[in-house]
Amino acid sequence: MTDIPASHPRRASLLARERLVEGVRAGIVSEAGLIAHGRGEAFDYLLGERTTDEAVAACRAAAALLLMARRPVMSVNGNVAALAAERAVALAAAVGGARASRGAAEGAMRLEVNLFHRTEGRVRLVADRLRAAGARDVLGEAPDARVPGLDHARAMCSSQGVGTADVVLIPLEDGDRAEALRRWGRTVIAVDLNPMSRTARAAHVTVVDELTRALPVLARETVALAGEPDGRLRAVKEGFDNAACLRAVLGRMVARVPELDLGPPC
Amino acid sequence: MTDIPASHPRRASLLARERLVEGVRAGIVSEAGLIAHGRGEAFDYLLGERTTDEAVAACRAAAALLLMARRPVMSVNGNVAALAAERAVALAAAVGGARASRGAAEGAMRLEVNLFHRTEGRVRLVADRLRAAGARDVLGEAPDARVPGLDHARAMCSSQGVGTADVVLIPLEDGDRAEALRRWGRTVIAVDLNPMSRTARAAHVTVVDELTRALPVLARETVALAGEPDGRLRAVKEGFDNAACLRAVLGRMVARVPELDLGPPC
Repeated sequence: MTDIPASHPRRASLLARERLVEGVRAGIVSEAGLIAHGRGEAFDYLLGERTTDEAVAACRAAAALLLMARRPVMSVNGNVAALAAERAVALAAAVGGARASRGAAEGAMRLEVNLFHRTEGRVRLVADRLRAAGARDVLGEAPDARVPGLDHARAMCSSQGVGTADVVLIPLEDGDRAEALRRWGRTVIAVDLNPMSRTARAAHVTVVDELTRALPVLARETVALAGEPDGRLRAVKEGFDNAACLRAVLGRMVARVPELDLGPPC
Repeated sequence: MTDIPASHPRRASLLARERLVEGVRAGIVSEAGLIAHGRGEAFDYLLGERTTDEAVAACRAAAALLLMARRPVMSVNGNVAALAAERAVALAAAVGGARASRGAAEGAMRLEVNLFHRTEGRVRLVADRLRAAGARDVLGEAPDARVPGLDHARAMCSSQGVGTADVVLIPLEDGDRAEALRRWGRTVIAVDLNPMSRTARAAHVTVVDELTRALPVLARETVALAGEPDGRLRAVKEGFDNAACLRAVLGRMVARVPELDLGPPC
């Protein structure tokens, strides 16, 4: 790892980049995953690299969905594991604890490895990374179900996970899979930096934020709502308008543009 | 290579992505180069993936600079070689021919390999890729000069190239190097999809366009201006305002946003 000074204004972004490059070398991240990360970086730059009020509101709506779910599952791909394995595991623990405190029949939010560029070796490495981060129960290595409407490799999923989930959390997901999951009747929560992406638009709730910032906010909101009655959770969910939220975030990005200096930097 | 249908609306973008992933596997492109490409993709998406009037105007101003230069040099990195080795060689030939027709003492625009994440092996592979595309005279494998103000590996350049050039064309360049070249007194022409990047702002002329689209336009404009007297070329150059051009391109990106549908795609 390069030494990036603690004071560097873009330290978080540079560290994320290093984690992904390490992830490629470790066999966890695909080359396409690096390109996708770069696209996200551009949108995060426009966002000012900070969590917006809209992202917090989306996390709150997502938290309500996770608490009310019969069976929530979080999908993990190579970029998610490389960037935020610990935070994904911590979120699953927070959601599980909050659900258990409500007396949910199946408390846990399970983690399922799903890769867009699937190889069995990479699935194993991603699962190992999650286990190294503390996950005890990782699905995806023995897929036995299919998401309808996707070609074979991309359709594979676990009957214990996405196959029987009602609510799926899909951070950094491909548009085809996000749309297929929605068509399949899943309630979809996405984390995506591009408010115009097909994934962002296909989801019922889209958190437009950088993953490592978003996951702790989602955990915090889930814990905060854990004691609320179902009626209140439904009201939170029904008060959230995803298209309006996407439009507001995009408006923030656009509004920042005139503030940016376009003159020579030197 | 994957089969991408000829009719696919984003075929050019997907092919570019494949060329870069191939480039990584061939040792030409760095992982950081993939992330940088992804950032560019996001801006190209906002641009509508087409060459704007502003990009054509910037190419015309750049052409005037290349024709009037005492010694123009084009810097080539891994992404440039992977995406557009043939087009870079064709541009160098077009500039050389146009300059020769004007009786320039040194007709050629030479190509110099300059890598941000420099390894001697990768320099060689990039130079080989340019030679395979028809370049006869590639600089950069035996650097004997330094760009002031950069650390050692990033400062290395050729005394036959950037070291004695007056005009440097730097497609897809890092902001530190672009700024250092400008401080060193070079007239800088950049090709960069992010109109807010330090490179875009450091350059005297910035072509905000995707590389494989931009290089042929730059070649065409150079040929078109080849017969013009110096006074006319100076007028073209002086009539070009880079900050205004960057602002106009950014305005286009922003103006496109409300047209984009944010509703569910399925």
